[in-house]
Amino acid sequence: MSVTDDLHLLDRRKHPALVIHQEHPLNVGTPPELAVQSYITPQTHFFVRNHGSVPQVSEFRYTLSVTGMVQSPLKLSLAELKEEFHTSTVVATLQCAGHRRSELATIQPIPGEIPWGAEASGNALWLGVPLRDALVAAGIDPRAKHVAFTGLDEISRGGEHFGFGGSIPLEKAMEPEVLLAYAMNGEPLPPLHGFPLRVVVPGYIGARSVKWLANINVQEQPSLNYFQRQAYKRFPSDVQPETADWEQGTMLGDLPLNSLICQPCEGETFVPGPLTISGYAITGEGHQIEQVELSINGGASWTEARLQAGKHPWAWRFWRAILDLRPGEYQIIVRAWDSSGRTQPEELGQVWNWKGYLNHAWHRINIVVKEESIDASGQSHIGGSSPGEA
Amino acid sequence: MSVTDDLHLLDRRKHPALVIHQEHPLNVGTPPELAVQSYITPQTHFFVRNHGSVPQVSEFRYTLSVTGMVQSPLKLSLAELKEEFHTSTVVATLQCAGHRRSELATIQPIPGEIPWGAEASGNALWLGVPLRDALVAAGIDPRAKHVAFTGLDEISRGGEHFGFGGSIPLEKAMEPEVLLAYAMNGEPLPPLHGFPLRVVVPGYIGARSVKWLANINVQEQPSLNYFQRQAYKRFPSDVQPETADWEQGTMLGDLPLNSLICQPCEGETFVPGPLTISGYAITGEGHQIEQVELSINGGASWTEARLQAGKHPWAWRFWRAILDLRPGEYQIIVRAWDSSGRTQPEELGQVWNWKGYLNHAWHRINIVVKEESIDASGQSHIGGSSPGEA
Repeated sequence: MSVTDDLHLLDRRKHPALVIHQEHPLNVGTPPELAVQSYITPQTHFFVRNHGSVPQVSEFRYTLSVTGMVQSPLKLSLAELKEEFHTSTVVATLQCAGHRRSELATIQPIPGEIPWGAEASGNALWLGVPLRDALVAAGIDPRAKHVAFTGLDEISRGGEHFGFGGSIPLEKAMEPEVLLAYAMNGEPLPPLHGFPLRVVVPGYIGARSVKWLANINVQEQPSLNYFQRQAYKRFPSDVQPETADWEQGTMLGDLPLNSLICQPCEGETFVPGPLTISGYAITGEGHQIEQVELSINGGASWTEARLQAGKHPWAWRFWRAILDLRPGEYQIIVRAWDSSGRTQPEELGQVWNWKGYLNHAWHRINIVVKEESIDASGQSHIGGSSPGEA
Repeated sequence: MSVTDDLHLLDRRKHPALVIHQEHPLNVGTPPELAVQSYITPQTHFFVRNHGSVPQVSEFRYTLSVTGMVQSPLKLSLAELKEEFHTSTVVATLQCAGHRRSELATIQPIPGEIPWGAEASGNALWLGVPLRDALVAAGIDPRAKHVAFTGLDEISRGGEHFGFGGSIPLEKAMEPEVLLAYAMNGEPLPPLHGFPLRVVVPGYIGARSVKWLANINVQEQPSLNYFQRQAYKRFPSDVQPETADWEQGTMLGDLPLNSLICQPCEGETFVPGPLTISGYAITGEGHQIEQVELSINGGASWTEARLQAGKHPWAWRFWRAILDLRPGEYQIIVRAWDSSGRTQPEELGQVWNWKGYLNHAWHRINIVVKEESIDASGQSHIGGSSPGEA
């Protein structure tokens, strides 16, 4: 295994419209207008959220170990994993806990974190072995409560070098949707996304879906890895970094109910008439999206969007609505409801936290609708694109 | 649109182990031992069954027309299809009606047809617009009974030039699993598989999943296209080509219940001990695979295989069993049962027909088990590979 400059991994493998937030480690976002173009996100469009360099792993020398509170620790080559266990699939959206952080940063700066727009969400078909089958094969100690994962990447922090890690409760680990995945959209995992093996924990923040998986450890307590014990914790909105007690933060797990306007984009201008608004909604804990609503009057009244016929409980659900707009300036707001009866909080201030995690407040887009003006050259002067322009 | 030599489309896009049966038109099979390596078949591994040259279609100039017994005929660009309709996904196995023809040809030669082994089956995640949504948008005449498809490829037969075509009953066309697909495993359709748009009719013979789709025609009778009216018809086993009345053949639609041993391969030799046998089973009409059984004594007794936890009603189901074999020669037989209570016919003679379609008799593999001999150089002399060798 060797570590190289990761930027070259983007060459020809990622869409040029992706937003490079950071080169070392590599962090690349998918603009929402690109995300909404395909219900299944091609590898070329999928966001990348790394904390260290991308390890180059030989498929043939790779081994996964299962250790800790198990009757028989396992050491499995990739071939053994594929041959000795049955495969399963899940269509699951992975979303970074920092998705939509940039909106929170308009309330109060969030230094030291990647300023993700609504760019850290992607949906794929994952293929692999159910985690629970590997755990059952090892034999679980009845006192065990958590399953911890460690990756082959190398992260340097505070003078220490370690692999990215995190854990999930054993109860979640035993659910059939949690996979040890070796393929994404029918192809082997690309190096950027965890080749040769990663965890996929549908419904959880992306950080728990550990890439380049080296070890699974069954244990009584959550992982002591920096990214479980310190990062990816949420503090109440009134807690500030200076006064925060790290032990008091809440470890993040389930994704909250969220919805997003992907098209049109912020600041676009359109001619009067019908305008198609599209986006996605997503929720966690196995709940389902029940309703998506749009408002152009600050939430005083709402128009229901039409939902994609959805069959994938762990994936985003696309929606679409047509608004017939007269000239004016509009703020379009979206909010979703899920099968637990929940909806989203209205204001960014309600969800603000100093690490900028889990922003799921109403999403808002500002657009302008005005009559088209034709200049002397015959060129029209309205930007953007939508059926409203036709 | 232009037509070129299709063989170059194989370069670097298909696995080198694929079997090229024909170059013009291009027909390429997936060896069963390769198929069973991945539940979702990568594009690189997917069989190709073409009747004409692969048309090169511009995504931007492409239009789909919906005509015939509809209230409002439609003309849709690919962008309109994507924007105006919601997307859906299906994991579906496409299987050619000629799959396993080579076994039938051992009973009596089947001239003029491609001698497919068990090579014409692949499973993918298809993404597109439900066909029924497009039909509903056009408005269906209540007297309509069939939905016919025509492709942009050009086929020459009997001095005529026409696009490949076929039809399905309207009742099937209105089922949610039938898609106008523009992506396969999360990527745009490759040219070999129908770019930019194809039909995917889960549970039907592959021929109805028309590629490079140009037209959908709603009509009272099945398609008059050669490939519906003449080819892909099944005649009783006792009918011979000289005496066949083409009008009396049965148009093929639903796939029959089938199962296949993918590993080991025919003729392999193993040392005594546990040997892993693996393969897949598939059925049609929305039924589910309930049971897969193996016999090594001609069907006198059966061992049950373990089924993959399956959730995809239109896809193959993988299975696996371990047989503990002493030295000897074995014929391993597989048969499946589905949720309709059906099982497979025992003998090839029961399913033989002079076009060689829908072979779904018991599948048989002959292997040898013998003690390993070590020669003077220390090299062992048993071929094949399986856990039994370890």
